[in-house]
Amino acid sequence: MNGATETLAQFVVGTRFEDIPAVVLQNAKLMILDTFGVILAGARDPGCKLLAQWVKDQEAASRATVIGQGFRSSSLLAALANGHASHALDYDDSGHYSTQTLPAALALGEPRHLSGAKILKAYVLGREVCSRLDAAFDAGREKLTGPTYRGWHHTGTNGSLGAAAAAAVVLGLDLEQMKTAFGIAANGACGLRANMGTMAKALVSGNAARNGVMAAMLAERGFTAEKSILETPQGMANAFCDEGDIDWKSLTRDLGKHYELERGAITKEYPCCSPAHRPIEAVLELVKERGIRAEDVDWIECDPHSFSLRRNEAGDAHEGQYSLIYCLSVALLDGQMGLRQMSDERVRAQDVQALMRRLRIVPPPGGPVERRPKERVTVHLKNGQSHSAEVTRPHRISNREGLEAKFFTCVQGSLSPEAAARVRDTILNLENLYDIAKLLDYVHL
Amino acid sequence: MNGATETLAQFVVGTRFEDIPAVVLQNAKLMILDTFGVILAGARDPGCKLLAQWVKDQEAASRATVIGQGFRSSSLLAALANGHASHALDYDDSGHYSTQTLPAALALGEPRHLSGAKILKAYVLGREVCSRLDAAFDAGREKLTGPTYRGWHHTGTNGSLGAAAAAAVVLGLDLEQMKTAFGIAANGACGLRANMGTMAKALVSGNAARNGVMAAMLAERGFTAEKSILETPQGMANAFCDEGDIDWKSLTRDLGKHYELERGAITKEYPCCSPAHRPIEAVLELVKERGIRAEDVDWIECDPHSFSLRRNEAGDAHEGQYSLIYCLSVALLDGQMGLRQMSDERVRAQDVQALMRRLRIVPPPGGPVERRPKERVTVHLKNGQSHSAEVTRPHRISNREGLEAKFFTCVQGSLSPEAAARVRDTILNLENLYDIAKLLDYVHL
Repeated sequence: MNGATETLAQFVVGTRFEDIPAVVLQNAKLMILDTFGVILAGARDPGCKLLAQWVKDQEAASRATVIGQGFRSSSLLAALANGHASHALDYDDSGHYSTQTLPAALALGEPRHLSGAKILKAYVLGREVCSRLDAAFDAGREKLTGPTYRGWHHTGTNGSLGAAAAAAVVLGLDLEQMKTAFGIAANGACGLRANMGTMAKALVSGNAARNGVMAAMLAERGFTAEKSILETPQGMANAFCDEGDIDWKSLTRDLGKHYELERGAITKEYPCCSPAHRPIEAVLELVKERGIRAEDVDWIECDPHSFSLRRNEAGDAHEGQYSLIYCLSVALLDGQMGLRQMSDERVRAQDVQALMRRLRIVPPPGGPVERRPKERVTVHLKNGQSHSAEVTRPHRISNREGLEAKFFTCVQGSLSPEAAARVRDTILNLENLYDIAKLLDYVHL
Repeated sequence: MNGATETLAQFVVGTRFEDIPAVVLQNAKLMILDTFGVILAGARDPGCKLLAQWVKDQEAASRATVIGQGFRSSSLLAALANGHASHALDYDDSGHYSTQTLPAALALGEPRHLSGAKILKAYVLGREVCSRLDAAFDAGREKLTGPTYRGWHHTGTNGSLGAAAAAAVVLGLDLEQMKTAFGIAANGACGLRANMGTMAKALVSGNAARNGVMAAMLAERGFTAEKSILETPQGMANAFCDEGDIDWKSLTRDLGKHYELERGAITKEYPCCSPAHRPIEAVLELVKERGIRAEDVDWIECDPHSFSLRRNEAGDAHEGQYSLIYCLSVALLDGQMGLRQMSDERVRAQDVQALMRRLRIVPPPGGPVERRPKERVTVHLKNGQSHSAEVTRPHRISNREGLEAKFFTCVQGSLSPEAAARVRDTILNLENLYDIAKLLDYVHL
């Protein structure tokens, strides 16, 4: 019987484009569209600007586009910068599987002038690897155990291997090279949740994309590494998980038969950490339906979700993404939650800072409700009245129209409507693109 | 009261060169000499050649010397390559504290033409950070618990922060920047022991050096990260350690008063993983004292040390470093254990491969003795006789003469005796060197 690493590697190197179900390809293209959108929106973020300038100052050979930053760099550094940008706004899909895999595939595919179909396949398989590793290694998450609850950020840890898979497809690695690339990538698997709410949060995606690119390139050249890195003693499972945390079956069950992307093309409605979404939605509903005004609110009864929403204050947009008090304050004031609400300018505005200082969030009786199927938020007014709203699942954008609309919003200010439409059309026909460099030319801004 | 991260950061940015005890500086120079030796010897290793060629192919700006490889690259990639080379032969000191810190300091110091004194200080403080983090986070090691026993390779994990400290000294970061650099570096803290016995083993040092360089450079430019990464929930301690694993007091006790380097300048006698050293020494003694010949040996009674010596076979030198059966076979055949014994050529030779297939290593009655103060090895001959030898502590090179001799052996074939003497003299007077680039010119081979 094959080991887990070999089985996963065999899936990556053995899957042909034509083996991938049409619905998966369709959803993959929509998710790629979404990712280009959030990268282009993210490119304007101060952390992305700073990282991009640093990358530029490295003066690496101009091979791969640093999207939206006006220059090319090495595949390694382009993967780093684009991976970082894709996750900077926390506006990508909630599994964050696009943030390492797509940048890795693009950074290696562009200088090689590979086809859109190859990139599409690399993305689908890289994404599936991320999803499978999460299902297996983070099986304890629902029980509040496992790597996530130790402090690991799966986006960077498992994501490094997902990026390696995507990179391996682009390079056409064979089975032994793929197993080796997993070993090298796992040696770089890292990322701590403590950095959530800082620029370094998104670096987990950038680092993972870079790890994957480097791992695949070194494996291609004959560098050696442990070939059963997932399951071997002192390997990835041992290091990240306690016994009982892991669901090995999830790693390989129906592998190649069932894809995570079959469940849909689903992305975030709001540019902030997912646990904030239900409370935000409840507050937006109360503002809209009951006409509640921020100045009248005294306190809010709500699960603080402090495991993820770590920041009690917010001095910039990165902290804002992980600050429930900020999210609810700005939602009360603006009655909406979009890119403008997650800008440094809005976070630093006097009205929202004053409201944050005044407002209190109080957990409901019985404590946090994080894992309950419904979440109830009650806004208590100064006049003694209170209003409640309940949210079961937060809204996600999950259809083509919604995804396209989000894309066009994200690229406003970066691309003209015509240029945006051209990028959209190119991505939604990605399997027919003869050279991925053409798409990257469109976003070489 | 300050948090642990702040205390460590304050130590790094607040220590002046003149605060460092003379004995520490003296030992530091000897360890730097040793590190240059093992980098130059490592430069000829196939993994280092392969990584260096890949680095060269990145065509980064020529700023920092890739030692012994004939070109310069970016600080980032030079740190990666030199960090990797320093650990490739497993011939550096057994804590491996030089392998990330010195390459990080050199890679940033060379393009800035900083003084030898600055590099020396960066090395001492970076090294102390590595040592303190190991003492605190790996306090469970003696009880066979903690990160090492989960599979983490401290050389890459804690080493990333040590490299960040060294890099921060070179860049002259302030306290807030240093705390931030720790946060960024910890986001890249990684490395799995499962890769021991492959080229990817040494990549933990390369990755750590690169992480430290990147972290310090980004922090200098205003990139943000969690500033209490060691102790904050979901930070480094939480991710790597279980409760009870950590000895927080070791992190800061007598910080700046007592340095790890006060115990001496101590490095390895043999180019392989430390747990192999006692058995090797016992066998060498029996060969020398009793005239035992390999052909007469039937089996060896010896602790297999399989936690560290993972490889039961050896097809190249990297596997040889982590294969007790190889180490003992070649020791029996050659009566010595040096660089020649850890070459691919020697590992692949017919005589040693044949002996490895024939020889058996059998744990002594009562099981492994790894943690016992003495280790006894018994060689059983085909004629029924047996001979035993006992080793308490394996020999380490720990005086100036021994360290210099090792350095000259390591650089044979890379440097002429005159050039080697010039490098030695420059390093042993490092505090008086006005420009570190001058030293790196000497090893730009």
